[in-house]
Amino acid sequence: MELMRTHIGHSLRAARISQGRTLRAVASDARVSLGYLSEVERGQKEASSELLNAICRALNLSLSTVLTDVIDLVKRHETPVLTVVPTSEAELSDVNAA
Amino acid sequence: MELMRTHIGHSLRAARISQGRTLRAVASDARVSLGYLSEVERGQKEASSELLNAICRALNLSLSTVLTDVIDLVKRHETPVLTVVPTSEAELSDVNAA
Repeated sequence: MELMRTHIGHSLRAARISQGRTLRAVASDARVSLGYLSEVERGQKEASSELLNAICRALNLSLSTVLTDVIDLVKRHETPVLTVVPTSEAELSDVNAA
Repeated sequence: MELMRTHIGHSLRAARISQGRTLRAVASDARVSLGYLSEVERGQKEASSELLNAICRALNLSLSTVLTDVIDLVKRHETPVLTVVPTSEAELSDVNAA
């Protein structure tokens, strides 16, 4: 199972990079240390809910926007549901008979 | 801004209650202490990503299912975008002129 902090880190980092901002600038706006933000972005530290909010605000993102991104990342890594795709007429008739 | 741990707690608690299971049973399946699970459910403790996964497994939920629920809760509490609704013809003509 995937770790939520890994995906939160990816999402925050992607948002920061897309805004062309440095770790230093966002850490300063969020009033967290540069080291803390860097560890959160690399999925090495769990962000507390309070500091996650501060980082979201510094990036002008709502928490739900970040979480929507996180869900996409989590779903991409979760074990997919197996689906049997019939490949012959015999299998198709089995499916139809079921 | 809403705290993520509050909504994760609500979501996990709602899932457990809907399954008719006790704190003790889910804590045991997740191999966490009853006190820890209780604090997580009440939003008093941040669940580490590893223990959040263990609790999800104990509840037979995927992480993305819980996070989808959390987003719904977060969105319900986030400040809505303000929309100006014209209430008179004068205001409507202002809007049309803009």
